[in-house]
Amino acid sequence: MKKAVVLLSGGLDSAVTLFAAKKQGFKCFCLIFDYGQRHKKEINAAKKIAGLARCHYQLLKISFPWKGSALLDKKASVVTRSSCLSGRQAGHRVTGKIPATYVPARNIIFLSHALSYAEAIGASAIFIGAHTEDYSGYPDCRTDFFQAFRKVVISGTKSGVEKRPVKIITPLINKSKAGIIRLGYRLGVPFSSTWSCYHGGRNPCGTCDSCYFRAKGFREARISPEDKYER
Amino acid sequence: MKKAVVLLSGGLDSAVTLFAAKKQGFKCFCLIFDYGQRHKKEINAAKKIAGLARCHYQLLKISFPWKGSALLDKKASVVTRSSCLSGRQAGHRVTGKIPATYVPARNIIFLSHALSYAEAIGASAIFIGAHTEDYSGYPDCRTDFFQAFRKVVISGTKSGVEKRPVKIITPLINKSKAGIIRLGYRLGVPFSSTWSCYHGGRNPCGTCDSCYFRAKGFREARISPEDKYER
Repeated sequence: MKKAVVLLSGGLDSAVTLFAAKKQGFKCFCLIFDYGQRHKKEINAAKKIAGLARCHYQLLKISFPWKGSALLDKKASVVTRSSCLSGRQAGHRVTGKIPATYVPARNIIFLSHALSYAEAIGASAIFIGAHTEDYSGYPDCRTDFFQAFRKVVISGTKSGVEKRPVKIITPLINKSKAGIIRLGYRLGVPFSSTWSCYHGGRNPCGTCDSCYFRAKGFREARISPEDKYER
Repeated sequence: MKKAVVLLSGGLDSAVTLFAAKKQGFKCFCLIFDYGQRHKKEINAAKKIAGLARCHYQLLKISFPWKGSALLDKKASVVTRSSCLSGRQAGHRVTGKIPATYVPARNIIFLSHALSYAEAIGASAIFIGAHTEDYSGYPDCRTDFFQAFRKVVISGTKSGVEKRPVKIITPLINKSKAGIIRLGYRLGVPFSSTWSCYHGGRNPCGTCDSCYFRAKGFREARISPEDKYER
């Protein structure tokens, strides 16, 4: 049975990606990062999702002691929908700039570790749930970046040199949030176990970018978010 | 003053690289990885070298829980010069194959973290002491790989998108070991504080690939190894 490493964050997108990889017939090995996120909610969600999908998971602790992102700095504020609308703070949906939640080289680091894991266990693919539409402010979520990374695999790894490079598969890359939710719905993704909010409160804040896009996606997909998000 | 992140392993090559970066006028921030090497000798050497060069260093702990390399597995044997010569074991110098000491995606992981560090502190370059001659068995030490990684920086990072990509500088890439040693000698590199041996004994083993190439390099550079390697 062909193997894949799946980057699992605990959010909605990576959960859909995991179920898409399973649907494609891969035996999935989930890679969950503990990288000093502001809260542990999404890590716990990721573990739960891996369990529900009956997949092995590997939790990997890495750190960014140099910070450099609002997502890593408990004191920094993340961009909220309301602050974008008021124009008080630069929100990427308004300005097209890279958002404060950008973590320098995050997906490059994630993919590098996933690549090492994949080569070590003989997996032929890595699945990552990045997509361009909502988060076009993140440079490491774009098609160009993944294309460049594939060339790194070809030139810089054993699997590449031996002409069987580990594939980097981005099943959601051109999908809208609503499209991702529709796909997840068809695949039986346990949406209620995923966590999207940037904050780690008991309930999602409902105002951060991530909550906003999630709610908008469910609305556009015409699937009731109340049924699909554990509160 | 322009800043650079320098990957420092404790070996001879990265020490020469650090001094070359300083010579080019960079304020250097050394990045030292604790990645579960078979011994701590090279980490201690790296700290000492950073101190001697009067540079800040950042020690970063990462792990490869999936192993996949003789360098990470205390039970696996690394390829020795004698085993190569006798033909009992496949040595990359003899067969051209990737050696048992290959760590899947190691330099990709190292560069990714260095890139994150560089962006966070506003460094304009990363220095890495890879070179192709002796270790052509490692795919992530070759020019093609670094060229591909530069494209990842351009497409996948904030500095790249903003048209000031962090540079990946490989000052030793086409040098022989003897050439590296000659350069280091001119730059005043404290060779005796570096550690090359794959094993962590009190003294270098003298038989592993790394010891062999080091001794050969000093011989060819006509610099006495005895004066340059603390025993």
